[in-house]
Amino acid sequence: MTDGNIFDNQEFFDRYRELRQNPDNANILIEKPALFSLAPDLKGKDVLDLGCGYGENCSEFMKLGAATVLGVDISEKMLAVAKTETEDIDYLRADMNDLSGIPGHYDVIFSSLAIHYIKHFDRLCDSIYTLLRAGGYFIFSQEHPLTTAPLMGVEWVKDVSGKRTHYLLSDYMKNTKRETVWFVEGVVKYHRNFSELINSLISSGFTIEGMLEPVVDQPTLERLPVYESDLHKPNFLLIRARK
Amino acid sequence: MTDGNIFDNQEFFDRYRELRQNPDNANILIEKPALFSLAPDLKGKDVLDLGCGYGENCSEFMKLGAATVLGVDISEKMLAVAKTETEDIDYLRADMNDLSGIPGHYDVIFSSLAIHYIKHFDRLCDSIYTLLRAGGYFIFSQEHPLTTAPLMGVEWVKDVSGKRTHYLLSDYMKNTKRETVWFVEGVVKYHRNFSELINSLISSGFTIEGMLEPVVDQPTLERLPVYESDLHKPNFLLIRARK
Repeated sequence: MTDGNIFDNQEFFDRYRELRQNPDNANILIEKPALFSLAPDLKGKDVLDLGCGYGENCSEFMKLGAATVLGVDISEKMLAVAKTETEDIDYLRADMNDLSGIPGHYDVIFSSLAIHYIKHFDRLCDSIYTLLRAGGYFIFSQEHPLTTAPLMGVEWVKDVSGKRTHYLLSDYMKNTKRETVWFVEGVVKYHRNFSELINSLISSGFTIEGMLEPVVDQPTLERLPVYESDLHKPNFLLIRARK
Repeated sequence: MTDGNIFDNQEFFDRYRELRQNPDNANILIEKPALFSLAPDLKGKDVLDLGCGYGENCSEFMKLGAATVLGVDISEKMLAVAKTETEDIDYLRADMNDLSGIPGHYDVIFSSLAIHYIKHFDRLCDSIYTLLRAGGYFIFSQEHPLTTAPLMGVEWVKDVSGKRTHYLLSDYMKNTKRETVWFVEGVVKYHRNFSELINSLISSGFTIEGMLEPVVDQPTLERLPVYESDLHKPNFLLIRARK
């Protein structure tokens, strides 16, 4: 499997699409609102979306007044969907491991849940810094480091009723590749702990402006108690950094 | 027990002192080198040490060329030791929950393993920001958020040989008080997750300059395999922030 391009695997693609269409999925309930809460005013701004997938966020950036939006993804299948479902948006197929083919400069660069597929976060930060105009924002979400940490994948201790009581954390300090099963076998991700993430951003010249570890609100928790375990171990980490 | 002043409990004080005198303890092996690695050149600088304890770090700051060093601690017993064992250093008894009695301004403010005893980190950041000169540094260590997270205290899953394989993480998102047993019962600490720490610093006006989650090096690990579990769950978090 090509590193970072699990999305062109047909089985993965189909099951991922099904997941993302469920309105109670964690992306829609938790990650997406958090990502947009970190966005500055996008009116008249040139926006780049790295790992744009179906282009849903690109559409939102346009609705929020962006002057231009360029969506970039490694997956041809994802971009094919994006092109038919969204308008006024340019799409470019590119690997986030090498952004040298991306033209122009940007005011805001977003990346939603793609960073953990990329091997060299330090190099990515350098590339993004170069693509940003002075004062520009880099706003990203990724799987929470506590989620990516265990070499053997996510496991919980449960009580007799099946409720998750403890997360089995291991390997948090080992900033290396993880091979996990997610719909299909052999999904490759990269675990980075907090200090690795923060120091890479700082080394590239970024100022950290904010960090979110979002969970659902109380009413949603009552409706969907499955999200209670997020209070033990959140699923997402978001950072806003500025050039 | 007075919040944040466990150190004036005689039993705690005696056992803590014994622990700190063991050269293989985690403070000496891990936390202290990490703290000093974050320090700028101290020559001619005015230094404040919040939660100075026995004043060991204050002595080091003097040796590194600091013009003045003021050590602050809530514990009379700790300051009594500090005053007899270190020279050329001023000591002041004060509660880190209220820094209004601290005179002057400083180039560098250190705090070693005291922050997690303080209820309001956001207010503390504001106070420290005020006490710093422009360009000044706030450099602190604290118990790692993964250590303080579980409401019921630190617990591990072990294999048949007794080796720690998984850390039982819970309650990471609950930024509240923790009552733990450490030599004596009822030691009060405050858990804060990464986003709470980072955002409080940023809200006070600080720029984050670096973060460390230190563990022992490979030769030390071979000599003292007890520290292997730090690779699953580190014990310390350090941050360097700048005004």
